[in-house]
Amino acid sequence: MERAIDTQIEDLKKMILLMGGHVEKALSQVTAALLSKDLGMFDQVHAIEKLINEDHIKVDNACMNLLAKQGPVAKDLRLILSVIKINNDLERMGDQSVNISYSGKDYLGRKPIQQQLDDIKKMSEIAGRMVKGSLDSFVRGDVQQAKDILMMDDEIDALKNKVFKDAVLHMKSHGEDVEAGLDLILIARNLERLGDHATNIAEDVIFAFTGKDIRHGGKFG
Amino acid sequence: MERAIDTQIEDLKKMILLMGGHVEKALSQVTAALLSKDLGMFDQVHAIEKLINEDHIKVDNACMNLLAKQGPVAKDLRLILSVIKINNDLERMGDQSVNISYSGKDYLGRKPIQQQLDDIKKMSEIAGRMVKGSLDSFVRGDVQQAKDILMMDDEIDALKNKVFKDAVLHMKSHGEDVEAGLDLILIARNLERLGDHATNIAEDVIFAFTGKDIRHGGKFG
Repeated sequence: MERAIDTQIEDLKKMILLMGGHVEKALSQVTAALLSKDLGMFDQVHAIEKLINEDHIKVDNACMNLLAKQGPVAKDLRLILSVIKINNDLERMGDQSVNISYSGKDYLGRKPIQQQLDDIKKMSEIAGRMVKGSLDSFVRGDVQQAKDILMMDDEIDALKNKVFKDAVLHMKSHGEDVEAGLDLILIARNLERLGDHATNIAEDVIFAFTGKDIRHGGKFG
Repeated sequence: MERAIDTQIEDLKKMILLMGGHVEKALSQVTAALLSKDLGMFDQVHAIEKLINEDHIKVDNACMNLLAKQGPVAKDLRLILSVIKINNDLERMGDQSVNISYSGKDYLGRKPIQQQLDDIKKMSEIAGRMVKGSLDSFVRGDVQQAKDILMMDDEIDALKNKVFKDAVLHMKSHGEDVEAGLDLILIARNLERLGDHATNIAEDVIFAFTGKDIRHGGKFG
């Protein structure tokens, strides 16, 4: 027999997917703006972030209603608590995209230093795949896929370190490019954080579907 | 008549206060390490972060038990959902303190540039007051105090901008100090984020005790 809570949980998942779509769009848009030097596109990121913030409040309200009216336990409860956390992580990803738009706009207003944009592009692509993959793993309850996401975090960290290193090297001998280098460093940092949030989501998925808490070095099989 | 849930909610509040105490200690310790140039103190920050991570899991479990066994509604439910979020923000503050310890250790290993440490000290003091104040407001249900915390965020942002500006200016004419300047910039950024998390807590307090959602530009009276 289908329970009312099953339908409501399916609705929650749809809301999260919709929100995740907005996050992916904010990220791809802000990266495209930076790479194509299109200042106007940065403003669109703010419009998308507004949608993400609306989603954030809607999802929270839906979770609260479900908790109040259904009094879920066990697996259902774990899943709803995961949604509350995933919701927060997605909202922070929206913030990070907006942060990137600020640094990106600053960067495009300066004399460009070309070297690191390829790495930033790669970081953004990995972060986008992490967002998409972590939400896929959530909707499908695919714990293995969630574990794969955790591995991708190392790639993004390595690229961030490379952007930092290259930018610092350049800044040391080009005082006039210190601001531009710093913009790229901050963008790389924001992308790394975006990846961290996707990692959080993957950990929540593992918890929701296995009951195992792997945060803070907990082991998983 | 006292309800069982009241006692359990009081226990939750105590757990959050204990965790908040650990966060305050991590922050004051990492700042003291930086200001007193005491490398060994940075390691203590990692030990405190472990406690914070343990608290994080304990609080989450306590919330889940309470939701499963008591099926709380209305004000109780709002309060427990706030604790879940506050718990996450406190845990992230622990992460930020550890991030500061990494940049701080790097900074102390280089030729020092003195100018910004006063501002960093001020930022850390404000962040510490924000953490303490936001948790006080939570435990006492003091909505006015929570609103005061929101105002303090501007002070910390202004100081962060000052650290950024001063460091960039210095880096432009001292290529050999680019890394040290960047360390200070990253520390200032982490302290700003720490303040943001305290702001999140204050917003959660306002929601828990008034039912008003003031996130994302929602209005409050």
